[in-house]
Amino acid sequence: MAKAPVLTPRAEDFPRWYQELISKAELADNGPVRGTMVIRPYGYGLWERMQQEMDARIKAAGASNAYFPLFIPQSYLTREAEHVEGFAPELAVVTHGGGKELEEPIVVRPTSETIINEYFSKWVQSYRDLPLLINQWANVVRWEMRPRVFLRTTEFLWQEGHTAHATYEDARDYAARIHRDVYHDFMVNVLGIDVVLGRKTAKERFAGAINTLTLEGMMGDGKALQMGTSHELGQNFAKAFNTQYLSKDGKQELVWQTSWGTSTRMVVGLIMSHGDDSGLRVPPRLAPVQAVVLAIKGDDQVIAKVREISDRLLAAGVRVQVDDRTDIPFGRRAVDWELKGVPVRIEVGPRDLENGTAMLARRIPGGKEPVRIGELEALLPKALEEDQALLLAQSRERRKDRTVDTTTIEEAAEAAATGWARIPWATLGPEGEAALAEQGVSVRCLVAADGSVPERDDQPGNVAIVSRAY
Amino acid sequence: MAKAPVLTPRAEDFPRWYQELISKAELADNGPVRGTMVIRPYGYGLWERMQQEMDARIKAAGASNAYFPLFIPQSYLTREAEHVEGFAPELAVVTHGGGKELEEPIVVRPTSETIINEYFSKWVQSYRDLPLLINQWANVVRWEMRPRVFLRTTEFLWQEGHTAHATYEDARDYAARIHRDVYHDFMVNVLGIDVVLGRKTAKERFAGAINTLTLEGMMGDGKALQMGTSHELGQNFAKAFNTQYLSKDGKQELVWQTSWGTSTRMVVGLIMSHGDDSGLRVPPRLAPVQAVVLAIKGDDQVIAKVREISDRLLAAGVRVQVDDRTDIPFGRRAVDWELKGVPVRIEVGPRDLENGTAMLARRIPGGKEPVRIGELEALLPKALEEDQALLLAQSRERRKDRTVDTTTIEEAAEAAATGWARIPWATLGPEGEAALAEQGVSVRCLVAADGSVPERDDQPGNVAIVSRAY
Repeated sequence: MAKAPVLTPRAEDFPRWYQELISKAELADNGPVRGTMVIRPYGYGLWERMQQEMDARIKAAGASNAYFPLFIPQSYLTREAEHVEGFAPELAVVTHGGGKELEEPIVVRPTSETIINEYFSKWVQSYRDLPLLINQWANVVRWEMRPRVFLRTTEFLWQEGHTAHATYEDARDYAARIHRDVYHDFMVNVLGIDVVLGRKTAKERFAGAINTLTLEGMMGDGKALQMGTSHELGQNFAKAFNTQYLSKDGKQELVWQTSWGTSTRMVVGLIMSHGDDSGLRVPPRLAPVQAVVLAIKGDDQVIAKVREISDRLLAAGVRVQVDDRTDIPFGRRAVDWELKGVPVRIEVGPRDLENGTAMLARRIPGGKEPVRIGELEALLPKALEEDQALLLAQSRERRKDRTVDTTTIEEAAEAAATGWARIPWATLGPEGEAALAEQGVSVRCLVAADGSVPERDDQPGNVAIVSRAY
Repeated sequence: MAKAPVLTPRAEDFPRWYQELISKAELADNGPVRGTMVIRPYGYGLWERMQQEMDARIKAAGASNAYFPLFIPQSYLTREAEHVEGFAPELAVVTHGGGKELEEPIVVRPTSETIINEYFSKWVQSYRDLPLLINQWANVVRWEMRPRVFLRTTEFLWQEGHTAHATYEDARDYAARIHRDVYHDFMVNVLGIDVVLGRKTAKERFAGAINTLTLEGMMGDGKALQMGTSHELGQNFAKAFNTQYLSKDGKQELVWQTSWGTSTRMVVGLIMSHGDDSGLRVPPRLAPVQAVVLAIKGDDQVIAKVREISDRLLAAGVRVQVDDRTDIPFGRRAVDWELKGVPVRIEVGPRDLENGTAMLARRIPGGKEPVRIGELEALLPKALEEDQALLLAQSRERRKDRTVDTTTIEEAAEAAATGWARIPWATLGPEGEAALAEQGVSVRCLVAADGSVPERDDQPGNVAIVSRAY
């Protein structure tokens, strides 16, 4: 008799599978205020690892972390016209503080361009102060009408970078550098997701930007997820906040700016790219726990052996956790670690001790086999790198299989029902884009004929990637 | 002719010195909304190092990080009577979201006991789920009438731990463990501040706690700064949120709880303990930059040598930064690094190259002397450990010199004008405490006769430490 499935199968109901996985793997709960979320320790552990890996790359790109206030005077938001139009419907507003009604209402930051620019205009005086490269890890609030955990939440966690440069070229190159060396590198080499780098169309650009670069991943159901964006802001905010510098030639010049962000949405990408019908599968380079060593029974010798294996793997550089909760049935614990997607499970029972072996269960390729305990230290780092490569290969394979080259808008719309369509931008254009939007299909990004990121929307040979999206 | 001082001397005007240091060392700015602050990269770098060191200790104490929402339904706050009374006057209230007036106003978290307990009551079912040990790094908001950067700000950054235990003893021991192994260890061994561990009197306890443990540091002006607290919450929140577990005997029991926090206030302790009239002095174990290597002139050979020294120190495990901004006068840069309190400055000019030497300036003991470049790698780690020890010794010395044993309330009040007074709690008592409060002097904590942390307020031999405080 077949076992009852732990989760609703993806093929049956993908959204339900997603919600069940988040709940059963103990990643997050809904918060009491509609649209907020509680990130549970295992879910937060994934986010902490994302932060560590991203933060190192951001610092390598020369940016420093800082912290700007949560509260922004409402008047700041209105200074850049497109920006306020983009965010006004989503704002949370504080009207009372310290028991009194406030004279000017305060906005809870939906993003920090305005408040950061207020300070950039004070800090930047001379060309010597440029480039000014700042990043912030923070919570932001955007009122959400159709909330869904990690995907669309009223409060979410993110990093937002904000930079000021002396020239257009320097700002453009820095936005591209973050896009490529920080975001793309992290998403491909750590998250194991085969994201596409592209350029947003005018319709999909950030409110206040002159160019938005994006990274789009294909999820398990063929939809697209925008996993990060890097914007060229031109001089829009510099004009609104009068951010000028004295050039080497002694002239006052407006700065050129960028902003760029990634958020807890990356957790959605992780789940929807790599999850299967048994739960999550976490790429080893990201995994807060790469291997769990389970004691099958609460026997003293077993517990001692489990600790010994854990210590040896730890010394070999593996992020390892012991599971000696032998008052919980072993089968339940095994299912729980499968749900959580820990790459490797090492199971030790009394019979294994006699043989000098342990059972090695691999979550990513699947399968389970006995191995000699003495060989684990040598075997594991290799197995983990294989698993990492396998996840990326599967992500690549999916994108290849479910992307169709099309030549008409009708074909593109049809292909977008189950995956992605590629269509020449010259064929589609802004009107075709509007027509697709009516069918719930959007242009995720433009890519150049050679697969690179186009420098202009109208660059000959540009291809639009269109699909349904989260 | 003597140089004009960089900062107002401490002896002349301590509060002004503090503000000037924060501004000139580029630690922080005031935010646009009254009471908020902008933490600039160098100030945030100090906080990041505090987070790293604290986080490792918190995890070693078995707690896991998680994240709970910023927004709390107003009704939650009212469930624990003392708690709401303590926080009601300080709340920021969101009344509008997504363009509409909200049905129930939302409070921006002043602390997370209530919302965390709502989830603890769901997550805790059985004795197997205990202890539940959670920590959160977050921003909190408490409306501030007399704001001062880092000290009292409407928004501040902190960590807050929240735990649930099966027994009173287990909760009590865990609150004490955090107090000692996390907070005290970090503050003494990393921050280099000779904090006193003690117990708060009933008057000074956290709103909703049955016991509050504190760490008090003596600042450069003799006042006390509360640098962290660890609370036993008893079953107050467990009753309010009905957090129960099924015991091994099959009975429903209420949990016992703790909460504990430290914040960006620790930056105040750092500045006011170690700062001098030339600026900040950062203990090497904390310092984001332990050594700066300065090129005196923009000569190619000098720049190459500065890079080489930096690389070698980096390889020797020193956190090092290069300063090759030779378009800024050397003197100004030297003063700037003194203000920022970087422990060691290595200055390299063309003449030094000829001699194979560099100037080594030590910020903490003071002084400057030529050293052979080849000896720097061996010399620096030793010098940094000496500097670390010196700061702690100076902090100890100050507390010893400025603490007076007293036997009457009058004597205690007098001593508190310039430092701390010790007075038997049996002599002072709650009435004496109230009398001192009228003169702006508070009981910072009680310590036992042997210097340990008392288990009860009325333990024979308890000594009260009284002083003016931030």
